Amino acid sequence: MPAPRRVGLWLVGAFGGVGSTTALGLAALAKGLTEPVGMVTALPRFGAVDFDAPPAFVVGGHDIRQTSFSRSAAELMARSNVFSESLLQACAPQLEIWSANVRPGVVYRPSSVIAALADRPDVRRAETPRQAIAAIEQDLKFFAAEHRLDQVAVINASSTEPLFELGGAHKTLNALNTALDRHEPVLPTSGLYAYAAINAGFAYVNLTPSLGATLPALEELSVARKVPHAGQDAKTGETLLKSVLAPMFAKRNLKVLSWVGHNILGNRDGLVLNDPQNKASKVSSKNALLGELLGYKPQSHVSIEYIESLDDWKVAWDHIHFEGFLNTKMTLQFTWQGCDSILAAPLVIDLARLILLAQRRGESGSVSALASFFKSPLGVKEHDLATQFAMLEAYLQR
Amino acid sequence: MPAPRRVGLWLVGAFGGVGSTTALGLAALAKGLTEPVGMVTALPRFGAVDFDAPPAFVVGGHDIRQTSFSRSAAELMARSNVFSESLLQACAPQLEIWSANVRPGVVYRPSSVIAALADRPDVRRAETPRQAIAAIEQDLKFFAAEHRLDQVAVINASSTEPLFELGGAHKTLNALNTALDRHEPVLPTSGLYAYAAINAGFAYVNLTPSLGATLPALEELSVARKVPHAGQDAKTGETLLKSVLAPMFAKRNLKVLSWVGHNILGNRDGLVLNDPQNKASKVSSKNALLGELLGYKPQSHVSIEYIESLDDWKVAWDHIHFEGFLNTKMTLQFTWQGCDSILAAPLVIDLARLILLAQRRGESGSVSALASFFKSPLGVKEHDLATQFAMLEAYLQR
Amino acid sequence: MPAPRRVGLWLVGAFGGVGSTTALGLAALAKGLTEPVGMVTALPRFGAVDFDAPPAFVVGGHDIRQTSFSRSAAELMARSNVFSESLLQACAPQLEIWSANVRPGVVYRPSSVIAALADRPDVRRAETPRQAIAAIEQDLKFFAAEHRLDQVAVINASSTEPLFELGGAHKTLNALNTALDRHEPVLPTSGLYAYAAINAGFAYVNLTPSLGATLPALEELSVARKVPHAGQDAKTGETLLKSVLAPMFAKRNLKVLSWVGHNILGNRDGLVLNDPQNKASKVSSKNALLGELLGYKPQSHVSIEYIESLDDWKVAWDHIHFEGFLNTKMTLQFTWQGCDSILAAPLVIDLARLILLAQRRGESGSVSALASFFKSPLGVKEHDLATQFAMLEAYLQR
Amino acid sequence: MPAPRRVGLWLVGAFGGVGSTTALGLAALAKGLTEPVGMVTALPRFGAVDFDAPPAFVVGGHDIRQTSFSRSAAELMARSNVFSESLLQACAPQLEIWSANVRPGVVYRPSSVIAALADRPDVRRAETPRQAIAAIEQDLKFFAAEHRLDQVAVINASSTEPLFELGGAHKTLNALNTALDRHEPVLPTSGLYAYAAINAGFAYVNLTPSLGATLPALEELSVARKVPHAGQDAKTGETLLKSVLAPMFAKRNLKVLSWVGHNILGNRDGLVLNDPQNKASKVSSKNALLGELLGYKPQSHVSIEYIESLDDWKVAWDHIHFEGFLNTKMTLQFTWQGCDSILAAPLVIDLARLILLAQRRGESGSVSALASFFKSPLGVKEHDLATQFAMLEAYLQR
Repeated sequence: MPAPRRVGLWLVGAFGGVGSTTALGLAALAKGLTEPVGMVTALPRFGAVDFDAPPAFVVGGHDIRQTSFSRSAAELMARSNVFSESLLQACAPQLEIWSANVRPGVVYRPSSVIAALADRPDVRRAETPRQAIAAIEQDLKFFAAEHRLDQVAVINASSTEPLFELGGAHKTLNALNTALDRHEPVLPTSGLYAYAAINAGFAYVNLTPSLGATLPALEELSVARKVPHAGQDAKTGETLLKSVLAPMFAKRNLKVLSWVGHNILGNRDGLVLNDPQNKASKVSSKNALLGELLGYKPQSHVSIEYIESLDDWKVAWDHIHFEGFLNTKMTLQFTWQGCDSILAAPLVIDLARLILLAQRRGESGSVSALASFFKSPLGVKEHDLATQFAMLEAYLQR
Repeated sequence: MPAPRRVGLWLVGAFGGVGSTTALGLAALAKGLTEPVGMVTALPRFGAVDFDAPPAFVVGGHDIRQTSFSRSAAELMARSNVFSESLLQACAPQLEIWSANVRPGVVYRPSSVIAALADRPDVRRAETPRQAIAAIEQDLKFFAAEHRLDQVAVINASSTEPLFELGGAHKTLNALNTALDRHEPVLPTSGLYAYAAINAGFAYVNLTPSLGATLPALEELSVARKVPHAGQDAKTGETLLKSVLAPMFAKRNLKVLSWVGHNILGNRDGLVLNDPQNKASKVSSKNALLGELLGYKPQSHVSIEYIESLDDWKVAWDHIHFEGFLNTKMTLQFTWQGCDSILAAPLVIDLARLILLAQRRGESGSVSALASFFKSPLGVKEHDLATQFAMLEAYLQR
Repeated sequence: MPAPRRVGLWLVGAFGGVGSTTALGLAALAKGLTEPVGMVTALPRFGAVDFDAPPAFVVGGHDIRQTSFSRSAAELMARSNVFSESLLQACAPQLEIWSANVRPGVVYRPSSVIAALADRPDVRRAETPRQAIAAIEQDLKFFAAEHRLDQVAVINASSTEPLFELGGAHKTLNALNTALDRHEPVLPTSGLYAYAAINAGFAYVNLTPSLGATLPALEELSVARKVPHAGQDAKTGETLLKSVLAPMFAKRNLKVLSWVGHNILGNRDGLVLNDPQNKASKVSSKNALLGELLGYKPQSHVSIEYIESLDDWKVAWDHIHFEGFLNTKMTLQFTWQGCDSILAAPLVIDLARLILLAQRRGESGSVSALASFFKSPLGVKEHDLATQFAMLEAYLQR
Repeated sequence: MPAPRRVGLWLVGAFGGVGSTTALGLAALAKGLTEPVGMVTALPRFGAVDFDAPPAFVVGGHDIRQTSFSRSAAELMARSNVFSESLLQACAPQLEIWSANVRPGVVYRPSSVIAALADRPDVRRAETPRQAIAAIEQDLKFFAAEHRLDQVAVINASSTEPLFELGGAHKTLNALNTALDRHEPVLPTSGLYAYAAINAGFAYVNLTPSLGATLPALEELSVARKVPHAGQDAKTGETLLKSVLAPMFAKRNLKVLSWVGHNILGNRDGLVLNDPQNKASKVSSKNALLGELLGYKPQSHVSIEYIESLDDWKVAWDHIHFEGFLNTKMTLQFTWQGCDSILAAPLVIDLARLILLAQRRGESGSVSALASFFKSPLGVKEHDLATQFAMLEAYLQR
C-alpha cells in the first residue's frame, strides 16, 4: 500500500488575512470541524475529481511580519467579528506547527509601503534580483524536502504592488535572465517569487493584481520547467457580480450607460491600496472586464477607499445606469457586504488543489480553464462567469 | 417578385401599458425613429436569423377598456415620465389605425377585479366557454383575412388572473372539449383565448403568470393543430436578476440562507396584483426558481405591493443573506428601478418574431428554447439565464 | 454617612434578548468593562443629573422560559455574533446571581404563541385577573424587601401581544376593579403586570407596543398611587429614522407621496410578530407617526417578516417617494442594519434611571418628557425627535 | 392706493440649470400653473409673513453662455426628464422677456474651466478687479432703474470655483479697496459680483461654495452699506440628510465610526466639479459639519464624480458605520436620488424673498437666521437642521 500523498501549500504573505484564514480553514477541514462552504472544488458535481483532501496539506510560507497564523487569526476575529473562539482554540496547535514553516520574506528594493509593514527582524534584503530568487528557491526546496512532499503549490497572497511596466527584458527568458544579475529592479517582488517557484518546479498561483508570472519570459520559463501556473487577482466580490450582471444586460440588449463602483474596506489590504500607485493596479484589474463583457465601453468609475472601522469587511456599492426600449433610463444598484479573507480563503484551497491537479496532468504554462477564479484570467479573454464555469466543468470532466 | 411578408401581432389586453408600449415601439421602429434597445432578437449575434422586420407587422388585439393605443400611451407618458411627446405625435396616426383593429374583449364569468376594469360598452359576455372561444376565433380569423396576413402571433399581455386549479377536465383534449360546452368556468379567460388562438392555427405566447395554454389538453391541441406556443410570465426584473445571481452563489458554493424580495409598483398590473388571489399566482411564479437554481430551498419571501405614486415603475429590493467559509454570514442587497412596460414591450416583439419563426419551421407544442424569456418556462426546468440563453443560441443557429 | 442607594430593575420578559443584554450591560458597566455607548442618560450634557449609577442596580424579573441571563446571552452571542466570549465570562457570576431573582411568569389565559414559548414548569396560571395581579405584586414586593431596595423600576421587555380593544371596563379604575375579579380577560398579560407594578407603588415603563398601562383606568391608578409611568414601544430603528426624516421633508415643504418600510428580523420577537395578530399592533405603532409629522397622510406600507437567518439583527429597507418643485418625483431609500437587543438594552437602562428619577421628583401618571424614547409616546402627540429631545433636555434641566 | 411692489431677482449664472429652473418656476407660480412645493417660505406656518408674491418678481442676471432661459430649460427637460412640454410652452413668452434682461458676464482672469464654458461673444474681460466691479454695478443699477424695482436680490447660482485662500488684503475694507485697483486677482469672480452687489446696495445670497461675500472686508462693506447677505452653499441633498441624521446619532449617544459619502452627478455643475481644484471646495463644504454635529470627528470620506448619463440627477450613497452598546458595530446606508436644479430652485426663490425681507427690516451683514438653507452658514456654527429651523421660525415670528 502506498503512503498517503502529502502536499505543500506555500503562502507568500502567509500571515495576512487571507493566508491566516486559509491555514485556519485547512486545519478545521482536516479535523472535520467545518464544512467546505465557499469551496468550488467541493461542489457535488466535482465529486469524482481526484483532488487532494485537506488532511494531505502541509502549510508553509513567507512573510515579512513578525506574527503567527494563530495570532493573526485571533486579531482578525477580534477586529472583524468572524470565526469563533472555540474554533481558533481547537486549531491552534496545528497553526503553531505550520507557523514554524513560515520563513522571513526576501525583498529587493521594496516599496515604502511594504518596507513600513516589514517588522520581522530577519527579513532578508537581496543585493540583486538573482540573489533574491536563489534565497526563495532554497526555502521552497527545503520545505518540500523536510516534509517529504509529493507536490507543492506556491500561492501569492501578499499585498498588492504598484502597477509595473513591462519592457524588452520581459519578453524572453534570455533577456530576463541577463537582467536579473544586474543591480536593477527588473521584476517587482511578486515576479521574483513567481520566478523562484516556477524555476524550482513548483506550481504557482497569483491571487493578486501584482505582476507575478504575467510576463512572456515567465510563461516561457513555466513551459520549459513543465510547471503550470494561474492568475491573476481573485474574483471575490464586486467583480464577481460584474461577471454575471454585465452578461445579463448584454443578453437582454439593454445598454449600460454608466457603471460606478465604490469599494470601502478596512484591512491591511485596504491600507496598502490607499497608496495611489498600488490602487491603480487594482482599479485597472476591476475595470477592464466591462468592455469585454458588454462589447462596448460605458463610462465607468471604480474607487477603493480605506475605511478603518470596516476591518476585513468590504462594502461595495455599485450604481448601474442603463437604457431600455424607447430611450428610457433605468437603474440597478447593489450593495455587497463581504468579508474579504473569508471569501478568498476557500478559493486559495481550491486553486491549490486545481494547480496541483494540473501539474499531475502534466500541464505547463498558464491554465486558462481556471479563468472563473480571476478578475484578469491568464491566457483567455473570457470574463462571463457562466462561460468560465463551463470551461472549468469541461476541464474537470476530461 | 413575391409580395413582402405581412404578419399580425394580436395583443390580448392590447391597451394595457405593455400592449400600448409595444404598439408605439413597433410603429417607431418601422419609421426608424428609435433603436431596438432591449430587443434580444436585435442582438448582432442573431443578425443572420430570418426574423420579420418591424414594418412587416400589423397590430390588433382585444381589450375590455374603452381607450386607444395613443391615449393609453399618452397616459403612461404623463404618469410615468417615459417616452417623449414628439415620439408620440410622430407615431399617433399609425396607432390610430391599429387601434381600429382592437376588438371588444370576450369574457365568461370574469373575476370582480376584471369586471370592474371593463368599461368598454361592447364587451361580449359569453354563455358558455365554447361560445367565448368561438367569438375570439372569429375575431382572429377576420383580422388575418382583412389584412391578408401570412401569419399571426397571439400574445397574452393582459392582467394577471388568480391561481387556477387544474383537474381531470384539463388532462386531455377530449375531456376539455366536453367541459367547454357546459355552463361552468372550466378555463379562466386566459385559457379561452389560448384555446381560440391555437385552435384557429395561430402561434400563441403567454407573457403573464395566468394559466394560458399551460395545461395538457392545450398542449395536445397545439400538437394536433401544428401550432407552437410559449410561456409563462415574462422575466423582466427581479426574477431576471435571480436567474443570474442564484447561479453565481451556486457556482461558488456559497450557501444562501434567505432571499427576501420586496416589490412595489403602481400601475394597473399592481392594482390587479393587490388582490390577494391574483398576487398568489405571481408570487408563486417568482419564488419557484430558487430551489431549482440552488439545489436546495433557502427561506424565501416575496411581496408585491401596490404603491400608487410609482405608476409604471417597479422597484424591487432584494436582501440575500448567505454563508461563506467558516460559518461567516454575508449580505448582498440590490435595488432594481425599472419601468415595467418599457422592459416588457421589446420582449413582446421578440417573442412574436420567435414564435412566428417557430411556426414557419414547422414546430408545434411548447417551445422550450424560449425559456430565457420566462419566469416559469414551459417544457423545461432550466432557470439559469446563461444556460437558457445558450439554448436560445443553439436553437437559432440551427 | 448614609448607606449608598440600591435600586431594582425588574424586567418582565427577563430572559429575552433585550432583558439579557440589559443585565449583561449593567454588569459590564458596573465592573467598568464597557462604555455607556448608546445610553442617552450618559450624554455629557446630562452629566449633572442625579441618575443612579450602574453599581446601584440589582436586577430581577419574570419569565416564562426555563433559562438564565448567561445562557440567554451566550445563545444571543452564538446566533447573532455580538458580545465577546471574554465579556460574557467576566460577567457570568453576576448574571448567575441576578438569574436567581427571576421568578416564573404569571399568566391568565395566555395566547397560543405565548403558551408555546412557556417551557418553565413553574409558570403560574391564575384563575382570575385579580389573582394574577396579586401574585405579581407579591413577587415585586419580595424583591424590594429582600434586597432592601430604595426604589424599583418595572420594565415590560416581553414579546408583543395582539392588539387589545378597550371598552367601558377600561375607562375608570372602579369599572376595571370590578372586572378584574371576573373570570374574563379584561386585561392582556401586559396590563396585569402594569397594574401590579403601579398598585404596589413601583415605577413602570412599557418598551413594547402591548397595552401595558395605556388605559384611563391605569392612568387613574398611577395618579392615585403617586407612581410615574412611561411608554409605549421603544423607538430603536426604522421609526427612529422616520422621526428625523419626516420632519426634514416637512421643513423643506417636500411632499411625501409614499413611504414604504420593509422590516426583516430573525429573533424570538420576530417569531412572535409573525403571528398576524401580534404583527398588527406593531405595524400600527410604526405607521401612525407619519401623519402627525407631515401634516397629511401619504400612502404608507409597513411590513415585518420573520427571516430566521438574521437572528437578532433587524434590517429595514425604506423607500420614500417624494415630490419636489414643478411636480418632479424623487426618491430616498435607506437600509438600516441594527441589532435589536443591542439597540434596546441601553434605552432600558436609560428609562429605568429616568423613571426612578421621576418618582423621586414626586411625579405620577405618564411622563410625557420621555417621548423621545417611544414610537407611541404617552400623554403627547409629538413625534419629531428633535422636539422630543428638547423636551427631555428641558425636563432634566429643571 | 400705492403701486404694487416690484422686486428684482438677479441671477449670477442665470442660464445654468438652477437659474433656468428658478425662472421657469417663478413664471409658472405667477401664472398659477404650479404649486410652491419645495418652497420653505410657502409653508402654512409662515403664512403671516410679508413675503413678496411670485407676480412681484422681475428676473435678470449675468451669464457667460449664449443661450436663453427657454432653451436652457428645454435642454434640461430633454436630458433629465423633468418638467413637461406644456409647462414650458405656457411660460416661454415670459422667459423670453426675462432672457433679454440677462447681461453678458464680466470676468477678470477666469479659470480655464470657466473660460471654456464662456461662449457668449460679448463676455467682458476687465483689466482690473475694480473695473469688473464697476461694470457689474452698472448692470445691476440699470436693471433696477429700467424696471422701477423697489428692491433687488442678487443671487450667485454660478458654477463652483476653486478654493480661494484669504490673506491680509481680505481682512479690512481699506486693504481690499487698495488691492482692487492692482492688476492682481485679489478676489475670485464670485467675490467681484458680491462686492458689486453689496456696494450698489443690493441684498446678496451665495448659493455656492465659492467665496462670494465670505470675507471680513465684505462683511464690513455690507454693514457700511446697510445690506444684508447670506450663504454659503445651498443644502439640498446629502448634506441636508447629514444635518438630521448626525444629530440623531448624537442624541442617542451612538458612536459614528465612519461616514462615507459618494456622489455622482452629470450636469454642468458635475463637469466643473470634476476639476480637482473646484471639487476641493465642495468636498470641504460637505465634510465640515460632521465634527460640529457629533462633537468628534469620525473618519469621513466624500467623493463627487461626474457621470454623464445622470444629467441633472444626483445620486448620493452614504454608508454610516456606527457603534452601539457593548461594542457592536451597525450600519445605516442611504441612497438619495434627487434632481439638483429642482431641489435648488425653490430655495432660490425662498432666499430671494427672505433676504429682501431682511433688507426691509433694516438688517445688514450676514443673516445667520437663514442657516438652515446652507451647508456652511455664515455667522453661526449650528448645523443641526432642527435647531436651524427653530432659528428661522423665531426670526420670522419677530
